Amino acid sequence: MAVMRECAVVGVGLHKFGRFPEIPIDEMGRDALLAALDDAGMEFRDIEIAYCGHFASGNAYTVIGRVGLTGIPIMNVENACASSSTAFRQAYWAVATGLYDVALAMGFEKMRRGVGGRMPQLGPRGYGSEGVSYEALMGTGAPPAAYAMAARKHMKEYGSTIEQFAQVSVKDHRNGALNPNAQYQQTTTLEEVLNSRMICDPVTLYMCAPTSDGASAAIICTKKKARQYTGKPITVAGWATGTPAYSPMGDWGDLAPNLSEKLSRQAYERAGVGPEDIDVLQIHDPFSPAEVLILESLGFCPKGEGGRWVWEGKTEITGEIPTNTDGGLVARGHPMGATGIAQIIEVVRQLRGEAGPRQVTDAKVGMCHNVGAGFCNIHIFKR
Amino acid sequence: MAVMRECAVVGVGLHKFGRFPEIPIDEMGRDALLAALDDAGMEFRDIEIAYCGHFASGNAYTVIGRVGLTGIPIMNVENACASSSTAFRQAYWAVATGLYDVALAMGFEKMRRGVGGRMPQLGPRGYGSEGVSYEALMGTGAPPAAYAMAARKHMKEYGSTIEQFAQVSVKDHRNGALNPNAQYQQTTTLEEVLNSRMICDPVTLYMCAPTSDGASAAIICTKKKARQYTGKPITVAGWATGTPAYSPMGDWGDLAPNLSEKLSRQAYERAGVGPEDIDVLQIHDPFSPAEVLILESLGFCPKGEGGRWVWEGKTEITGEIPTNTDGGLVARGHPMGATGIAQIIEVVRQLRGEAGPRQVTDAKVGMCHNVGAGFCNIHIFKR
Repeated sequence: MAVMRECAVVGVGLHKFGRFPEIPIDEMGRDALLAALDDAGMEFRDIEIAYCGHFASGNAYTVIGRVGLTGIPIMNVENACASSSTAFRQAYWAVATGLYDVALAMGFEKMRRGVGGRMPQLGPRGYGSEGVSYEALMGTGAPPAAYAMAARKHMKEYGSTIEQFAQVSVKDHRNGALNPNAQYQQTTTLEEVLNSRMICDPVTLYMCAPTSDGASAAIICTKKKARQYTGKPITVAGWATGTPAYSPMGDWGDLAPNLSEKLSRQAYERAGVGPEDIDVLQIHDPFSPAEVLILESLGFCPKGEGGRWVWEGKTEITGEIPTNTDGGLVARGHPMGATGIAQIIEVVRQLRGEAGPRQVTDAKVGMCHNVGAGFCNIHIFKR
Repeated sequence: MAVMRECAVVGVGLHKFGRFPEIPIDEMGRDALLAALDDAGMEFRDIEIAYCGHFASGNAYTVIGRVGLTGIPIMNVENACASSSTAFRQAYWAVATGLYDVALAMGFEKMRRGVGGRMPQLGPRGYGSEGVSYEALMGTGAPPAAYAMAARKHMKEYGSTIEQFAQVSVKDHRNGALNPNAQYQQTTTLEEVLNSRMICDPVTLYMCAPTSDGASAAIICTKKKARQYTGKPITVAGWATGTPAYSPMGDWGDLAPNLSEKLSRQAYERAGVGPEDIDVLQIHDPFSPAEVLILESLGFCPKGEGGRWVWEGKTEITGEIPTNTDGGLVARGHPMGATGIAQIIEVVRQLRGEAGPRQVTDAKVGMCHNVGAGFCNIHIFKR
């Protein structure tokens, strides 16, 4: 196995999530990158390699070209909703293995109307495919259907309720209202979530992530070099990556939970921590039931008790395991390629103690879980 | 700097290049992957990580899913025409740095009609961009125009001729006729190339790479492990990667040559060889003048003498530096995402002595040069 050097995140930057038809993607990406450089106290010429995650909009070279072209290797990576956590991991690997000392990871996206379905790479036949899969024929390939089926199964097996799923959305909107970069900064009530339009039973409209535009950036360097850039480096303590050993669509249902469980164990082992050590958590929740299911997969509560945990407020900012403190995908927004690094940015800010009104008291260890169409990345950070 | 383990290519596989509207991209990719596994004498479960390069068609997860889903990390990488050499380099890094022992790199593409212009990511405003660049406004962002301008500049500065550029195409078609996987397997004459439709002076139709469908795969493992898979491992001896330190479109003109020069020096140094040691060469030639210009950049002949070298037959299979022995992009075809690894496959076959009627006598060292919209990868291989 590779000897991995200790690495830290030394700068993060975000372009507010929302709908910005008037702002070109290149400018959104540029703003996130400039914010990250400023945050690190770094010049762009210090960056030695760059990975950019996006699904179906923009291009690494033109986005980075808005800041400067210095001849460095630049790569576009595309792993659906997990694109920028993949970019982050590749950037981390580039530094940890000793290939480079300072790496940039970015994510950006401007989404068209509709949840993915009207983006060029997602046709009715499924992601990037010309064939017609069994799942696509059954209509279960669409993310809302897949998450809804997983939720229904959980309700049947464990007695979780639609009110518990709705409560996730209520909590996320409350957190989003504390986050100036969130797409939705207003609170909602349990009744409003339950009474919003039914999308795919039990998933109502207010339990769905919106279509969003946004950009995010993080700069990673060796721990040794970190202090020359920032007073508050955040260590990349653990990572794991993989895909479900089943069908491309199966992961939406049963297997993202199973894969998340397997990978979280690897990440905990690499970081030398367990779920009991995590102070702040980001779960990939394009649909609110995800929080209930994934809480269990990541080992935060016993199987079947995720709904009860949410209902009892244990995932609130003041709770036992503060989850999606920035509003999560549902309230912060979900510009597909930008989401993974946005999660990392929230954890970095929490561990630095810079999360303002949504600060988790004395957060020392944080975890990010990002999933997309058969790809999963988990990262654990320590202050 | 990282301690890099010695790595070798142990299996390669190709789906014939051409136009295959009836074959889904997933099946083309599957066939290339199965051929590579067969070539290596390896089971799919031996693959530990996979990188797939493509521009605007298919998806790593669904292509690989046609062979098997074993839970490994899978990444889509997209660097325009340099997508699969980027996938290859990432796979090489994953093994060389010790993260994994066996890695798969793939490339695949089904192109729509028109050279890139009608693919979803390439609008009239340029690659992935919403803004309008100066180059796009001037119409110089289109690859034929950019290569034509570079050719015109070369003619003016060094007296190279349209006949010399046309001769590249004649040679490439002759090589393609010896390659059962080439899109065009017929020869052409100097007159035919010169008299074919003018696309962008001095680039005529027969000097342009066609739009193509195809897939390619290569398996990399540690040198130590290589012999358990194949009797003829080919060592990855040198690499270099970067982007032009100028504008996204500038690379098509002056700067791909300059970048190629800079990166080739890095690759030579890493491999411990010079241009005089290279027995077989693959140059990225979407338009025939590229061979003339890049021969000079890579140090194979003095500046300004590329045209004369081609004219004197020095880049023929029997010449001093056999170049694009499989027909190059113009005759073998150029399914954008599949091209970079197709070049590597040709060099691997040449170094193994398995290139049949187009075999270069006693080829020991080979080099691949792959460029795309601001990205460049060079690899050097030794038998």
